Amino acid sequence: MNQPGSSLEPAVGLGGRSGDMADSSTPFIRNAWYVVAPSSEVSRTPLGRTVLGTSIVVFRKQDGSAVALQNRCCHRSFPLSHGTVDGDTIVCGYHGLRYDATGKCIEIPMQKTVPAALRVRAYTAVEQPPFVWLWMGMEPPPENERPPQPPWLADPDWDVRWGYLYVKGSYVHMHENLLDLSHLSFLHARTFGTPEYARTPVEMHCEGDKLEVWRHVQCELPAIYAQPLGWTGVRALRSSGSRYVAPGLHVNTGIFRNLDAPDDADRPMVQVAQLVTPETAHTTHYWTAQARNFALGDAAMGEFMINAQLTAFQEDVFALEQITAMQQLAGEEGCQEFSIPTDRAGVLMRRRLKRLADLER
Amino acid sequence: MNQPGSSLEPAVGLGGRSGDMADSSTPFIRNAWYVVAPSSEVSRTPLGRTVLGTSIVVFRKQDGSAVALQNRCCHRSFPLSHGTVDGDTIVCGYHGLRYDATGKCIEIPMQKTVPAALRVRAYTAVEQPPFVWLWMGMEPPPENERPPQPPWLADPDWDVRWGYLYVKGSYVHMHENLLDLSHLSFLHARTFGTPEYARTPVEMHCEGDKLEVWRHVQCELPAIYAQPLGWTGVRALRSSGSRYVAPGLHVNTGIFRNLDAPDDADRPMVQVAQLVTPETAHTTHYWTAQARNFALGDAAMGEFMINAQLTAFQEDVFALEQITAMQQLAGEEGCQEFSIPTDRAGVLMRRRLKRLADLER
Amino acid sequence: MNQPGSSLEPAVGLGGRSGDMADSSTPFIRNAWYVVAPSSEVSRTPLGRTVLGTSIVVFRKQDGSAVALQNRCCHRSFPLSHGTVDGDTIVCGYHGLRYDATGKCIEIPMQKTVPAALRVRAYTAVEQPPFVWLWMGMEPPPENERPPQPPWLADPDWDVRWGYLYVKGSYVHMHENLLDLSHLSFLHARTFGTPEYARTPVEMHCEGDKLEVWRHVQCELPAIYAQPLGWTGVRALRSSGSRYVAPGLHVNTGIFRNLDAPDDADRPMVQVAQLVTPETAHTTHYWTAQARNFALGDAAMGEFMINAQLTAFQEDVFALEQITAMQQLAGEEGCQEFSIPTDRAGVLMRRRLKRLADLER
Repeated sequence: MNQPGSSLEPAVGLGGRSGDMADSSTPFIRNAWYVVAPSSEVSRTPLGRTVLGTSIVVFRKQDGSAVALQNRCCHRSFPLSHGTVDGDTIVCGYHGLRYDATGKCIEIPMQKTVPAALRVRAYTAVEQPPFVWLWMGMEPPPENERPPQPPWLADPDWDVRWGYLYVKGSYVHMHENLLDLSHLSFLHARTFGTPEYARTPVEMHCEGDKLEVWRHVQCELPAIYAQPLGWTGVRALRSSGSRYVAPGLHVNTGIFRNLDAPDDADRPMVQVAQLVTPETAHTTHYWTAQARNFALGDAAMGEFMINAQLTAFQEDVFALEQITAMQQLAGEEGCQEFSIPTDRAGVLMRRRLKRLADLER
Repeated sequence: MNQPGSSLEPAVGLGGRSGDMADSSTPFIRNAWYVVAPSSEVSRTPLGRTVLGTSIVVFRKQDGSAVALQNRCCHRSFPLSHGTVDGDTIVCGYHGLRYDATGKCIEIPMQKTVPAALRVRAYTAVEQPPFVWLWMGMEPPPENERPPQPPWLADPDWDVRWGYLYVKGSYVHMHENLLDLSHLSFLHARTFGTPEYARTPVEMHCEGDKLEVWRHVQCELPAIYAQPLGWTGVRALRSSGSRYVAPGLHVNTGIFRNLDAPDDADRPMVQVAQLVTPETAHTTHYWTAQARNFALGDAAMGEFMINAQLTAFQEDVFALEQITAMQQLAGEEGCQEFSIPTDRAGVLMRRRLKRLADLER
Repeated sequence: MNQPGSSLEPAVGLGGRSGDMADSSTPFIRNAWYVVAPSSEVSRTPLGRTVLGTSIVVFRKQDGSAVALQNRCCHRSFPLSHGTVDGDTIVCGYHGLRYDATGKCIEIPMQKTVPAALRVRAYTAVEQPPFVWLWMGMEPPPENERPPQPPWLADPDWDVRWGYLYVKGSYVHMHENLLDLSHLSFLHARTFGTPEYARTPVEMHCEGDKLEVWRHVQCELPAIYAQPLGWTGVRALRSSGSRYVAPGLHVNTGIFRNLDAPDDADRPMVQVAQLVTPETAHTTHYWTAQARNFALGDAAMGEFMINAQLTAFQEDVFALEQITAMQQLAGEEGCQEFSIPTDRAGVLMRRRLKRLADLER
């Protein structure tokens, strides 16, 4: 564990726009897992969705497994998502070319043979309810590698609810937002931030592959947590963690302790899987899945909490949209950005993304 | 007549995007006729319309003849279409420059003389009711050459109705769509296609200048034809032809035979003039005029048939829009396209457009 | 004074698009004053506004004076206009960086020191009610130089009303429009133009720095003036002047004489300050302030006149929008423009803007 000092750390790249940090102009990381859709959206009706700038069609085979293919028919570029699933094949809705689940074209109407060159790319799709993940690397994923989905999303000891937000901003800035929660006191002042947040020291755990940030904030909890816990007006310790896991996943954790209760009292916990999928360089699919380990099965509380969270995250969506607009305005000043000590984890994350992108080229 | 075999024909350019076929990036063919407007839209009130990427103003002189000029006033670029027609001249609505029907500026308010350099381009406009055609070549059209409008559009033996569709796609792909009607079984499955269509052999007549494709389909006619003919449930032969005539015109023909009627019974016929006018590289004006030689004067049947046709053609408009979006998505895969045997006529047409464009440069 | 002859004057650059005249592609003039907002819009709540392609935040200090800063936080580009004014500082709404009124970052949450490099640009803002002006030059404005706002905007002998129009066109063409009022007879034929306008000789005063144009038109006044003056049906002399003052200001003057009244009767007068502020190369903020020296304090008349003026100016906004669309259409003809004698002052103005832009590079 290392704690950033009270002075700026040149080591984290303070200064103008740094060429070694990823931003919206950095090529996508292809050798990585991204959520393409929640399980509930994938069915026998094909679904079209753009991921990493490429249009993908997703559907289920007869055995229920998910298939992901390049969505552009190799004949005349009509999207297969407007065609029909038939058995384990998909038939283009324009001229009827039929593709199997590996992307091979296996039928052209009125033709006896189909040249081997006629095919669309197939992508590895792996379902881990409630999500379907996609691997778009030029090589298949490492053997036995599973998407990084946290196990508690399918654990009966946790009550899970998720929502979707469309972000007009780069996924790089989304991760950066999630890794520096000092913005809770400002951007989220009216939702789930409290003023104590930005005044509480931050712990950074950035050794090896780990990019994790924690704060232990003494405060009255904001309503999103105080109300379901019945802790309104209670002095509490809110421990908040942010962990960058992979280009497509970020995990936020909240642990709550009632400071007036005995030390061994329950410490209820909320975990949030932030499923961040680049659509294009400047737009991001953002699924956010909230899990709690208290009041299991209380549907009304679940609804209250996911809605309060989505309301707060709209503020992040707004911030990213504004930043994108500001970066795209061709003004006199360019788009310099200075980093500050609380950016340390974010800067390391952006450097890592940049290195990964460089490695793939 | 030659019939494509059941195997792919390398001769028609099977393979990746072929440099010798026109697509949306190919320059427009200027030495050709295009419909600029239906006669009913051209009046003493000036009409602005973009054709081949250039804004045109169209109006009628006092003798009723149509005039087409460059729409941009040569003074300060205000569109003349927002000015006023006065006699056989048009007066700019900004500062009052007056142009005659040849595009020559003949009056500047308060000036005694007008320099000869002040003029806008004039284009040859030829009316063949119900349409006005435009020639935008750098040279005038060949002497005595008339627009290629089919004579049956003004023949009392045919009942004609037309409609307009705005297409967010290239006219090249519109022609390609019209030349390969194997898509009727798929794209138009719910409107005027039947499953037999794609299973019926295609005859191609591609000798010399001719680019024509025919199919003779045994089927129950779709409602658009069965209902007005009273042939619901009748076994019929539907002969469908597609003929590429010029960059601005395509003709589709349908001939219907009741297979239970005597051989010498009437064979009702529908002809469709597809008037395809590029607006920009990625948008097309599309007038479609339907003529039938049966039930002449039956207005209700005419309305039913043109509406059913426009409903079906909306599916083509949708397909072209989708293809354009797919081509413009900057994904990993580029815009490769493979051709199949039924594309033979379409590939020849696209090669011809490409050659014409090359010749004009 | 010099009067343009009835023939074209090569001296004013008749011919195709002249490289020595400014147009929408000419860089902005930075060493100049522009209105950034009316006083009533500037408050303790920060206001974001784009000027010369750069996003600016404007707010009032505790002493009421206006502050203008670069709107992009130098940390992660969030617009300061979505933050909070606190004392004489502004706090970023994303991570809480605090800037003083000179643009210096003076606080980073949880940090003891702030590097001097962390700052945003500050711009000179000068309030001259009812407007706040901005200087965005790379150097500060010349000592003792005040914005060019006409004194009668704050003179109790004049009754002033203003309005705002957003123009999808270049400020260059807005000035050009205002300097050649021969368009009143055409573009404004239904609002405040009369046919006599374009037929009346124009006086041009273009010596030294002066760019001024006058017309003395005998006519029945249009309703916008006739109605408040009670001169409906009266034969009048309408003297109209246009004066280019600076890149951000144009002044139009109207002096009205009742030709049936004694020579020494009152000659009521209207002056209009045209506050033209480039937003981007193709969009312009346009405040227009109308002052009259008659019927002072008659609120209903004031409302009638400013509304009639704004209605007429919408026609200019329409014209500029049309011209911009025409210039952006990539047609065969390019964007040539020919100048005519009444353009003389406008051509000189555009040459001056071009020279100013060249000097700044």
